Amino acid sequence: MTRHAAAQALGALGVCVAVAVCTLYVTKSTAQGARENLPQAESSAAPIYGITIPAGYRDWRLISVAQLAGGNLKQLRAQLGNDIAIKAFREGKLPFPDGAIIAALHWNEAASHDNDKVLASGFPGAGLQSSVAGSAVNVQFMVKDSTKYAATGGWGFADFTNGKPGDEALHKTCFPCHLPAKDRDFVFARYAR
Amino acid sequence: MTRHAAAQALGALGVCVAVAVCTLYVTKSTAQGARENLPQAESSAAPIYGITIPAGYRDWRLISVAQLAGGNLKQLRAQLGNDIAIKAFREGKLPFPDGAIIAALHWNEAASHDNDKVLASGFPGAGLQSSVAGSAVNVQFMVKDSTKYAATGGWGFADFTNGKPGDEALHKTCFPCHLPAKDRDFVFARYAR
Repeated sequence: MTRHAAAQALGALGVCVAVAVCTLYVTKSTAQGARENLPQAESSAAPIYGITIPAGYRDWRLISVAQLAGGNLKQLRAQLGNDIAIKAFREGKLPFPDGAIIAALHWNEAASHDNDKVLASGFPGAGLQSSVAGSAVNVQFMVKDSTKYAATGGWGFADFTNGKPGDEALHKTCFPCHLPAKDRDFVFARYAR
Repeated sequence: MTRHAAAQALGALGVCVAVAVCTLYVTKSTAQGARENLPQAESSAAPIYGITIPAGYRDWRLISVAQLAGGNLKQLRAQLGNDIAIKAFREGKLPFPDGAIIAALHWNEAASHDNDKVLASGFPGAGLQSSVAGSAVNVQFMVKDSTKYAATGGWGFADFTNGKPGDEALHKTCFPCHLPAKDRDFVFARYAR
């Protein structure tokens, strides 16, 4: 399997979940999109799509939650939507209107020993285990602009680790990975009722 | 182990997670708190604490996400907070001020075959698995009112399945289970950064 194919495959999880497994790669990436007037600084905008972290996204409403697990990887995840995205999700409206933004927050899954202690004493042998969101892995965004991002299904994609955007190679994988969800306007997440 | 002890143990998970394993029990419960002027109707208020489902809680901001697994049980979970609760979480302010409400939403965890298909083709043998929120199990609330609920640490507790409150026996388990979190004002959830 080529590295490109691997990146493509990983990119399809979550909203654009490439980074799930490529975390180290992303963290080490240099800011290829650095602005020329800031030669020493890393750009705050993701390459290709020019997306910066939307202000206040942590205040957005919940779309759904998810888990990704396998090998050494174990993540808990949440997708949040801005007002336009949430309205479209709730109404089942496709395609998403321009202005819709979806945020995907990924955390390392951490065992909750506090909870497990209570479970173990109440249900010895039952094997109940609780886990919670631990340290942040990354946050990703899909921004709908059917004109600006016409070449990629109307969506721009962006990935940030510790506030820094991933590199161009990473961002090239986002749209191909979302192609399987074409009949849902390239969005994997479904609204949790 | 007595049934009471079991209920206590389960009650301590999530926000007040007793219902995680007691779902059937809860679903079948009659509304012991039914108002006398509605003898044929089930009460919409949880027993003991008199809490009804807060309007608009699904629009509240995200506190964190969690998973509970063991035996046949597998749930994905999210905690949401009203403005007062979120402010207190972000500022690390304890105890929570009156008016704070925490909502715990629990869903059956569902395998995402769409995501798994992409993973399997990109990473054969890697064993990566994706799961998402499936059908709703229940929703629970903690309401802070240090006067009204002085006997239970200042918190009122409520559990609803399909919009109907659990019975009195269930609600009696909530506070005892939250006692281990006394140093965090009886709240298990931690804010996910």
